[in-house]
Amino acid sequence: MSELMTHAELERRLREIGAKRYHINHPFHRMLHTGKCSKAQVQAWALNRYYYQAMIPLKDGSLIGRCEDQDLRREWRKRLEDHDGDETRPGGIERWLKLTDGLGLDRADVISTRLLLPATRFAVQAYVHYVRERSMLEAVASCLTEMFSPQIITERMSGMLAHYDYVTPEILSYFDKRPPQAQRDATFALDYVKHHARTPEQQQAVLDTLMFKCDVLWSMMDALHYAYVTPGLIPPGAFVPRDSDG
Amino acid sequence: MSELMTHAELERRLREIGAKRYHINHPFHRMLHTGKCSKAQVQAWALNRYYYQAMIPLKDGSLIGRCEDQDLRREWRKRLEDHDGDETRPGGIERWLKLTDGLGLDRADVISTRLLLPATRFAVQAYVHYVRERSMLEAVASCLTEMFSPQIITERMSGMLAHYDYVTPEILSYFDKRPPQAQRDATFALDYVKHHARTPEQQQAVLDTLMFKCDVLWSMMDALHYAYVTPGLIPPGAFVPRDSDG
Repeated sequence: MSELMTHAELERRLREIGAKRYHINHPFHRMLHTGKCSKAQVQAWALNRYYYQAMIPLKDGSLIGRCEDQDLRREWRKRLEDHDGDETRPGGIERWLKLTDGLGLDRADVISTRLLLPATRFAVQAYVHYVRERSMLEAVASCLTEMFSPQIITERMSGMLAHYDYVTPEILSYFDKRPPQAQRDATFALDYVKHHARTPEQQQAVLDTLMFKCDVLWSMMDALHYAYVTPGLIPPGAFVPRDSDG
Repeated sequence: MSELMTHAELERRLREIGAKRYHINHPFHRMLHTGKCSKAQVQAWALNRYYYQAMIPLKDGSLIGRCEDQDLRREWRKRLEDHDGDETRPGGIERWLKLTDGLGLDRADVISTRLLLPATRFAVQAYVHYVRERSMLEAVASCLTEMFSPQIITERMSGMLAHYDYVTPEILSYFDKRPPQAQRDATFALDYVKHHARTPEQQQAVLDTLMFKCDVLWSMMDALHYAYVTPGLIPPGAFVPRDSDG
């Protein structure tokens, strides 16, 4: 039987998982951030990633919907506010649509999600189901990829602005807002899992959850890479770029 | 096959159900509002009803957690805010605890829910499960009892203040805030079901949902009446009043 880790050791193991498995390392992201993607590939990425954004409030609502800890529900409600916005402030989903608009995608197509890669849908749904079905500890831990998101967002913004003339700060407004939100959420979640994983088994469940979540994000990249880069086999019904956007 | 009702007819049928089945008509409520309850009975009511209050955000989070309509999620988030409050404003649950405090109940006992009548727990859980499992139309419709809540709250506040010397406006602060919130929520839900019940079967589902929800509230009253009034058989483990509060 393994022993209980210190908080510092648990955090070190989490960061190690992120260093190896976070999707910043995926070849598709390297292409995207270094200007190697065609506009069609950028479109395919933004369109598929929209579904992830759109489902985040359902994931977060599902957590609140089975959480008996009022303080945790209040904390988690901030995420609903971030993503859905309110009458006066657009949320993250709305800002993501500025990106897909700016890339020339039809908004109704994007919102309908009818052009998604099936693997995108399945990966995102696996995430939502994980949060609905696992322990509260695992549900909270599943957002720990936020620990690594400020880095990917910084790299993405500078890379995309430098390399694609059709990418403007305005259409990247989603990413402007996210780093402080992600930082707040990651700090909260990391502290939560440190204090609520009180057995070696629970600590292992936290590590496993981060691996699961990295798999969700990574598999979305695999599907994009397979369909739109190599071998470039687009599944029936999925987004087909127009020639002019190639 | 029955025909599609007009919006006005649907509303008339809903109000008819409320007039017959809403728990304002229950003998226990008549006792409570006309000064016929002992302090112990008032305590039993407040302690059991706490569980309903405490589970409302889980019900509402569950709805958000499976709702793909962003506008509906935003609207529904207001209910989370009402019940859970935030760092600066106490929510409905916190205000309900002012009532149980004011009635001399131990706060830890109340929050633990260990002294509930089993029928309270089962009825409230039936409500949460209904919202998790039924159609979105039925999930929304299940709050339609709010149409009738301003009336019961008005009657309750004036009745309790008039008849119980230990009941003060301060410990009834929960009820102060609720009528405008309930009015807003009922107006929204009534409008929603009118526009989203587009077949006779869906309209019937809305009517059935209101009957179900009235049954939830009514059965909570039955259990209180049975345990604490007639025949006064308190189930094993449930709240037993101290003699001095009889």
